[in-house]
Amino acid sequence: MAEPLRIALAGLGTVGAGLVRLFETNGALIERRAGRPLRIVAVSARDRSKDRGVDLSPFAWEDDMTALAARADVDVVVELVGGADGPALTTARNALRAGKALVTANKAMIAHHGMELAELAEAKGTALKFEAAVAGGIPVIKGLREGAAANRIERIYGILNGTCNYILSTMEQTGRDFGEVLAEAQGLGYAEADPTFDVEGVDAAHKLAILAAIAFGTRIDFSAVGIGGIGRVRAADITQAEALGYRIRLLGIADREEEGRLFQRVQPCLVPHGHPLAAVDGPTNAVVAECDYAGRLLFQGAGAGDGPTASAVAADIIDLARHGGEVGAPFSVPVAALEALGAADAGHRTARTYLRFTVADRPGVLAEIAAAMRDAGVSIESLIQKGRPEEGGEVLVAMVTHECPEARVTEALRLLEGSPSLAEPPLVMPLLG
Amino acid sequence: MAEPLRIALAGLGTVGAGLVRLFETNGALIERRAGRPLRIVAVSARDRSKDRGVDLSPFAWEDDMTALAARADVDVVVELVGGADGPALTTARNALRAGKALVTANKAMIAHHGMELAELAEAKGTALKFEAAVAGGIPVIKGLREGAAANRIERIYGILNGTCNYILSTMEQTGRDFGEVLAEAQGLGYAEADPTFDVEGVDAAHKLAILAAIAFGTRIDFSAVGIGGIGRVRAADITQAEALGYRIRLLGIADREEEGRLFQRVQPCLVPHGHPLAAVDGPTNAVVAECDYAGRLLFQGAGAGDGPTASAVAADIIDLARHGGEVGAPFSVPVAALEALGAADAGHRTARTYLRFTVADRPGVLAEIAAAMRDAGVSIESLIQKGRPEEGGEVLVAMVTHECPEARVTEALRLLEGSPSLAEPPLVMPLLG
Repeated sequence: MAEPLRIALAGLGTVGAGLVRLFETNGALIERRAGRPLRIVAVSARDRSKDRGVDLSPFAWEDDMTALAARADVDVVVELVGGADGPALTTARNALRAGKALVTANKAMIAHHGMELAELAEAKGTALKFEAAVAGGIPVIKGLREGAAANRIERIYGILNGTCNYILSTMEQTGRDFGEVLAEAQGLGYAEADPTFDVEGVDAAHKLAILAAIAFGTRIDFSAVGIGGIGRVRAADITQAEALGYRIRLLGIADREEEGRLFQRVQPCLVPHGHPLAAVDGPTNAVVAECDYAGRLLFQGAGAGDGPTASAVAADIIDLARHGGEVGAPFSVPVAALEALGAADAGHRTARTYLRFTVADRPGVLAEIAAAMRDAGVSIESLIQKGRPEEGGEVLVAMVTHECPEARVTEALRLLEGSPSLAEPPLVMPLLG
Repeated sequence: MAEPLRIALAGLGTVGAGLVRLFETNGALIERRAGRPLRIVAVSARDRSKDRGVDLSPFAWEDDMTALAARADVDVVVELVGGADGPALTTARNALRAGKALVTANKAMIAHHGMELAELAEAKGTALKFEAAVAGGIPVIKGLREGAAANRIERIYGILNGTCNYILSTMEQTGRDFGEVLAEAQGLGYAEADPTFDVEGVDAAHKLAILAAIAFGTRIDFSAVGIGGIGRVRAADITQAEALGYRIRLLGIADREEEGRLFQRVQPCLVPHGHPLAAVDGPTNAVVAECDYAGRLLFQGAGAGDGPTASAVAADIIDLARHGGEVGAPFSVPVAALEALGAADAGHRTARTYLRFTVADRPGVLAEIAAAMRDAGVSIESLIQKGRPEEGGEVLVAMVTHECPEARVTEALRLLEGSPSLAEPPLVMPLLG
């Protein structure tokens, strides 16, 4: 059998420990499939003494993880520390500069520094692989970069955050409100103690920016992703969406517009019942790629968790073992050939749009909203709800517009800005077309 | 830029012509992603004069496709002729014996001769690739062989025939019967003039046998696949399933039993509404792999058609261009390491089961059926229908059993065999657990 592939592991949190466990249980199987032995030779983490439920004694220990890359007995550095910068980035840079392959699950680092790291990998003729950074155990990076490699991808969108999907689908099933379900999700380990990155859409935006680069052959541009979260979605919105035949899902959507600009946005959307994404419940991820030859491809599975993430990291390592150095460009085409597209102006994009206003319960409010819509040229398809007053005398008014440019909706909301009739800014969610 | 990868194309039917068109339209994109030029250099088909809507003038023509492999200017032979044997198999053998890579969309050939061809490829150190043979444009071979490579796959199942899924979902939506919808599917090009291979489950069985080999590390054993089709499913069965909260889908199911035996079967099953496969409509394919680390992965997309199939063929070619000779074993592990498992005895497998009897409309028939069930130890969970007589005085009696070993259901049906009360053999469909 060929020479072993020697692995250094930076980070021994749940995913790192999960990877050690994966090699313990499935090591023989993996070696048969990889065609050569795979050996973890060295590990590093903050706290050496912590019990992680796996046996670390066979591996050399480095107190300083950034030093793993300097070890002569290492071919691949696996970075599972997390964080866009700091030790993760230093470890990644060191590994690639030393000509070692880098495998990472770090979406924030790739979203922010992916271009620099890919250039480094290309310059050194080594590999940068990050299947685990997007959609956990689902082989979607591979699916797009290799499986759909012959296609012009026209649009990519999906459910990229399992926490948000758990919360939305649980709200849907139980009728409970956001805060209550979030607390439950935290108890179950589906949401972090500080859920900001998840529920505000930042985590999904990291993944979307990475997917868009691979799908469209463009440079990653995380700063151009429009980001909205689910914190303002109420049980009443879910009920109204359901009555219309829709479910609310936090979607990341990217497409390359005909004018050569890149549209990227994360926001809650209304997804029609017949669409496969409407049926995705719980902490699941799902990615749809619309391809010119392959048609609509859907990849679905567990979006997070130690097992799925370790599975994706190990798949990258097995690829390295199988293909030696011949792994191709990290973003499918060399960084120098990726296009730097300007951000699309979302204003001209058309959609039917769900709007929900929280208003004071007094005469004239609906007339005021309707007048703003009229003045901005937004035609209301249906006023779907004017609820009974909640505590505080507020009522919810929900409506769906006819298809119209987003700029008109924005203008209508601008006209209403500061109106004493509105208790909070309106909630705006497009209907997935 | 590196040397071009030189391709010979055997077969210029819809998929072959589709592949030529794909290279025409997306050639520049593909070359950027592959990192080197890809050139079709020679083609062969039965009829040189036929207009296929693509320009074949840049390519050398071979009257005898089995001679393509002998050309010194060819690196990869793409076989798109079809048929398990005949010119397709000769072309494949010649290509591999000549040390050239073989890419094929031919599920029948791989299901019947995949082991021989893979051994040949391994002996010559060349590649055998067949992404397009299973589930059209969906990168499911890649997803299992590479994306899930670190996992023990516990079960694999899915919708593997688009024609059957189109027919079943259209019956569901329109309430029409099998024959009528089949005729419509033939008119739309979703079903062949001779639909036998599709509607009787043989096509799905070819794909299942290939998937099982990759998923479980076993030798392909097509002859051990239990095969049932959809020709006996009636509109009334669909209505009854719907009332129970199920949809009828033709599923291929394979698992490796704990006793080291391989279960493989294609048959119509009742899939619960909440399951992602229940939502798969039209000529779509979808494959679920249950993995020990990655969890439940779902791959879904167009299961056939020239565009999707050409996309999968081209993805295999791009892999060859990217990875040179280092492509790994065709079935993930070398053929010599694949296990030859005995076929599972289905009798001990338990399921809740839908049974539909077509019976004479006279007293005592239900008592006779119920007695057979009792005598075989099958407990009836619900008698869900005893319809009004149809033409000819027959009535349909449908029921669902409690979970029990399949052998008991078989025994109950044996007890009823030859009974003058039954107008036709009962229709048996397990409920997906």
